[in-house]
Amino acid sequence: MLKLLLAFAALAQTVPSDPAPEDWKAIPDNEILVMTLQGGHQVHIRLAPRYAPAHVANIRKLAEAHWWDGTSVYRVQDNYVTQWGGGDDKTTLPPGVIENPPAEYEWPGFDAVKSVTFAKPDSYAARTGLSADGWPLANYGAVSSLTHCYSMVGVARDLAPSTGSGAELYTVIGHAPRPLDRNIAIVGRVVEGMQWLSSLPRGTAQLGVYAKDQVPTPILSVRLASQLPEDERPHFQYRATDNPRFAAWIKARENRDGAFFTVPMGGVDVCNALPAVRRAQ
Amino acid sequence: MLKLLLAFAALAQTVPSDPAPEDWKAIPDNEILVMTLQGGHQVHIRLAPRYAPAHVANIRKLAEAHWWDGTSVYRVQDNYVTQWGGGDDKTTLPPGVIENPPAEYEWPGFDAVKSVTFAKPDSYAARTGLSADGWPLANYGAVSSLTHCYSMVGVARDLAPSTGSGAELYTVIGHAPRPLDRNIAIVGRVVEGMQWLSSLPRGTAQLGVYAKDQVPTPILSVRLASQLPEDERPHFQYRATDNPRFAAWIKARENRDGAFFTVPMGGVDVCNALPAVRRAQ
Repeated sequence: MLKLLLAFAALAQTVPSDPAPEDWKAIPDNEILVMTLQGGHQVHIRLAPRYAPAHVANIRKLAEAHWWDGTSVYRVQDNYVTQWGGGDDKTTLPPGVIENPPAEYEWPGFDAVKSVTFAKPDSYAARTGLSADGWPLANYGAVSSLTHCYSMVGVARDLAPSTGSGAELYTVIGHAPRPLDRNIAIVGRVVEGMQWLSSLPRGTAQLGVYAKDQVPTPILSVRLASQLPEDERPHFQYRATDNPRFAAWIKARENRDGAFFTVPMGGVDVCNALPAVRRAQ
Repeated sequence: MLKLLLAFAALAQTVPSDPAPEDWKAIPDNEILVMTLQGGHQVHIRLAPRYAPAHVANIRKLAEAHWWDGTSVYRVQDNYVTQWGGGDDKTTLPPGVIENPPAEYEWPGFDAVKSVTFAKPDSYAARTGLSADGWPLANYGAVSSLTHCYSMVGVARDLAPSTGSGAELYTVIGHAPRPLDRNIAIVGRVVEGMQWLSSLPRGTAQLGVYAKDQVPTPILSVRLASQLPEDERPHFQYRATDNPRFAAWIKARENRDGAFFTVPMGGVDVCNALPAVRRAQ
């Protein structure tokens, strides 16, 4: 059995540099969305109000109105996205929800937001990095955007100029579909329970939509953590990136070593270096 | 319902340039591995003997010996790998299977193999590309390797200098773990049935190994297509990349347009541009 366990260890993604206690920062309760699926499985999403304030404002109103309760996860396209929320039976949005918010896809500049910059450009962006509070970023010269990494949450929309209300959301369950960056609003990241969205049966109809003979997964409820009773409220922390311990972690991600990795890469893709988020201790 | 369908269309990965009939080339029957899981679900893997001949020779011998029959899929780590094959109950390899083949991780040069080169370097390699027969490649100056894209199949191994016999295999079910490139043997790509490996319940023990209270998925049989009776034998074709139709497809992947993509990227990640493989018509 030893050989087998070593084989597992050899494939492990290790974290060579541990954070100090002060590196863990509280995520506000109104920036955590709790989606409860049939079976009681919960998906926790960290919201990104700093980057998509109008879309996140919509999402908060939708949660406060219990608008998603009784909707479903109805699309699972392999190596692409799992999508959920309002279908054609939910055409009316709650009061105050804007059907087409501003296109919150990018912002001018990069340095004002980024804390970490990765060693190399990637296939899409001149520079990639992380904000001090742990969001993945890409810079395209004059503008920057969040990046469509695995587990990031975006707003499904119709053809441009539609920007999507937030009533239909998706998360990435495969290789980062970065061509969506700058073309769609990213509003958050699944920080716990991703497996309940990534391991669902794939849809067999066009684009991974569930066919008539498949059963969409019912959504029992979606709430902001701040809407829940204090004793039921989950509390999360993000790992800050603006400290030497995190810089050492990135360096280790860029140059894997140890008894398994005989060839270091000298770089790492932003989507292979997302900072940890954990439950408050 | 129209709005909803448009929303799906907006998230679709489209193929703007169609291949000509002559672009489809037959994959030899002894380069297709057919794994049948409990429930009759089949996973078809295209083997890469050109890049890892000794490891693929082992895999063919293991299939011919029916060695995997009765083993299981015992590890599913979210956003990383699904792993299967010989456990500690399968310590003896069939005659002729080499326990540690040569380290078939990379080869000198790039131009002799590549047909397509992508527009930009990525976070890992100076150049990335595709072979004429559709394999994803990365060039690191003097040497090149296959790349750990979603659905690629590799050989689990112990710590170096172990190279892995091929008795334990894995496939990528998340964002490409490219730091594994040049450190492990890639032997193929799942070309049909990926969903049967990507949608399995995630393992709850360390590194995504199934815990005692979880049930590994039994593997009923693994055979080369060439081992099967002619009337049961699946036949696959790959899309050749050395023609102007494929070049146009890559150009379209690098610069998405149409009514949804308002900002083209000017580049594409090799793992977002894997050539199509299909059943022979």
